Amino acid sequence: MTPPATVGQPLAQVDTPALILDLDAFERNLKTVADLARGRVRVRAHAKTSKCPEVGKRQMALGAVGVCCQKVAEAEAMVEGGIADVLVSNEVVGEAKIERLARLAARARIGVCVDDAGNVLALEAAAHRAGTKLDVYVELEVGMGRCGVAPGEPALALARSVAACANLRFAGLQAYNGRAQHVRSMAERGALIGKAAAAVRMTREMLEKNGVACPIVTGAGSGTFMFEVESGAWDEIQPGSYAFMDADYAKNEWAAPLPRFEHALFVLTTVMSRARPDRAIVDAGLKASSVDSGMPVIWQRPGLAYTQASDEHGFVAIEPGAAAPALGEKLLLMPGHCDPTINLYDWYVCVRRGVVQALWPITARGALT
Amino acid sequence: MTPPATVGQPLAQVDTPALILDLDAFERNLKTVADLARGRVRVRAHAKTSKCPEVGKRQMALGAVGVCCQKVAEAEAMVEGGIADVLVSNEVVGEAKIERLARLAARARIGVCVDDAGNVLALEAAAHRAGTKLDVYVELEVGMGRCGVAPGEPALALARSVAACANLRFAGLQAYNGRAQHVRSMAERGALIGKAAAAVRMTREMLEKNGVACPIVTGAGSGTFMFEVESGAWDEIQPGSYAFMDADYAKNEWAAPLPRFEHALFVLTTVMSRARPDRAIVDAGLKASSVDSGMPVIWQRPGLAYTQASDEHGFVAIEPGAAAPALGEKLLLMPGHCDPTINLYDWYVCVRRGVVQALWPITARGALT
Repeated sequence: MTPPATVGQPLAQVDTPALILDLDAFERNLKTVADLARGRVRVRAHAKTSKCPEVGKRQMALGAVGVCCQKVAEAEAMVEGGIADVLVSNEVVGEAKIERLARLAARARIGVCVDDAGNVLALEAAAHRAGTKLDVYVELEVGMGRCGVAPGEPALALARSVAACANLRFAGLQAYNGRAQHVRSMAERGALIGKAAAAVRMTREMLEKNGVACPIVTGAGSGTFMFEVESGAWDEIQPGSYAFMDADYAKNEWAAPLPRFEHALFVLTTVMSRARPDRAIVDAGLKASSVDSGMPVIWQRPGLAYTQASDEHGFVAIEPGAAAPALGEKLLLMPGHCDPTINLYDWYVCVRRGVVQALWPITARGALT
Repeated sequence: MTPPATVGQPLAQVDTPALILDLDAFERNLKTVADLARGRVRVRAHAKTSKCPEVGKRQMALGAVGVCCQKVAEAEAMVEGGIADVLVSNEVVGEAKIERLARLAARARIGVCVDDAGNVLALEAAAHRAGTKLDVYVELEVGMGRCGVAPGEPALALARSVAACANLRFAGLQAYNGRAQHVRSMAERGALIGKAAAAVRMTREMLEKNGVACPIVTGAGSGTFMFEVESGAWDEIQPGSYAFMDADYAKNEWAAPLPRFEHALFVLTTVMSRARPDRAIVDAGLKASSVDSGMPVIWQRPGLAYTQASDEHGFVAIEPGAAAPALGEKLLLMPGHCDPTINLYDWYVCVRRGVVQALWPITARGALT
């Protein structure tokens, strides 16, 4: 894996497409969440977004207790990279994966979520064989209709089945409404998290009334986390995109109590064809910037719009009167969606005031299993 | 890079998500194009799709003259993997890339496309410095509004500027209408390629009338290539997806003269949550199957539909009365779009009649520059 740039190189000389991390903006984003969370909730930053232990270490240096992941392979990459506390904020199903997860717990504190009693038994058996202990969180369905058991009785029953296992520790509840993150209106996002908070409170009370201690309620993302914090129902938040921002999150309404994060993540691209006066073709298409949540947005070039992506090309419309980019000129794109875009690259090219400072390997890129 | 499976393993035991290549269907697809092209046109299979020299070698064993790519980094991976004839069917702009391309021509026959006279001079200077020769194709704009010069005079002028360079060889015309590939109606696809063929013929005649020999006209994709073959205007075709097929291409109308290719590419996924009776959640989301051209389609499981993807999850709707998949059960998905899906994986898990036969590294995965 040859790095795509060298330390000390000016940004303008970095070959394209390249994934650029603006360190000043990135560090301010990290500090914003650390400051807001301090004394109120724990931060467990989501490494499904960053895919990079170097990012996780910087989040932990500002107080995060560890990272979370969605995949065992991501957790393996994080532990390999020196992160000692990893929660797989997701169900892990399948013998091979469960074995790997249980073995990983010999090297770091490992948590996992459950929504099925049979899965609890499979985790217990694997942890027993591996001679390890796993933190297990019962996932509550709080509005996104994906994984998780219903609040109340079903959660209590599952928590009891976890607590009955010798090699599992009932660590609390996972409660995350992913759908709410991208709801544009602040009021609607607040209302969705309000509903989730009621479900969390009701379930926690039921657990404690029944003698099942619930140490941690964890969840929340970059688009809502201050609603979770202010509700008082969560002990830990799991934002990931906040470090980077993207064009889709930029479309949200942002107002107190939520901070608007700075754009720290870019795709550097080169104009590779100027065959038409009203159009430029750039060398970053949908293999360089994921378009699942919309086209990338051109950074600070009025009158230029990235209108369409093919696999390896981007179409840039040039408005009449706009400063047209020359063949060979480089542009910065804000990706539509940071998570799957980062997953297309092997390295962050870390830049400060226009100069490459570091190259961070994206060691969990492609960590699917 | 640890392989995700082992030779001899039953498909059902392969961990998920995994990229599965059904070798029987894949080999029949390769043979279909080889048979249709034999004696009529050369085949130069597109490695922007396969990203894998092992695939290219099998295409060449059936008669393909080499492969084409969209990126210098892909071409480097192909040459490294033993492919001796590579066309970058795209413009290459930027000093670093052009230097690499010119140096690569010391190791293999390398072609490249141009649509700008300044770019021709940059290629010539780099080839001179590297002491190599490059095959240069003038790209014609034939309907997709992306790169390429207009047919006729502009192409002639650019071909002359190539022919005037000591280290460049004018190799012919690149003429590809990518947009036409996914137009659903056969008649409309045929009409679009008919227009492109007229532009090609007119330009070739103008070149030859002006004493500029045009050795090869190259282009065409999996959705149209027999129209190009039957027009007689192309000498070489560049299909890539035909080896794999995908759910988007399956929506095209297919009839003579075009063969309907077999689905040879799948994402194997596991049901990881069955919290609701009418829904299954699988462990392949948009980081496992690119959704730019639509959701993946579930293979041979009536009543199940993949309706929505989040980053690491797929939502599967279960119709009333359908055989519901159990927790832990594995399903095969046909990706919506093969090219960007393959680019998410490091390995093809090659399977024949349900048993892993080989693991092919996707060495040009992430080859962006």
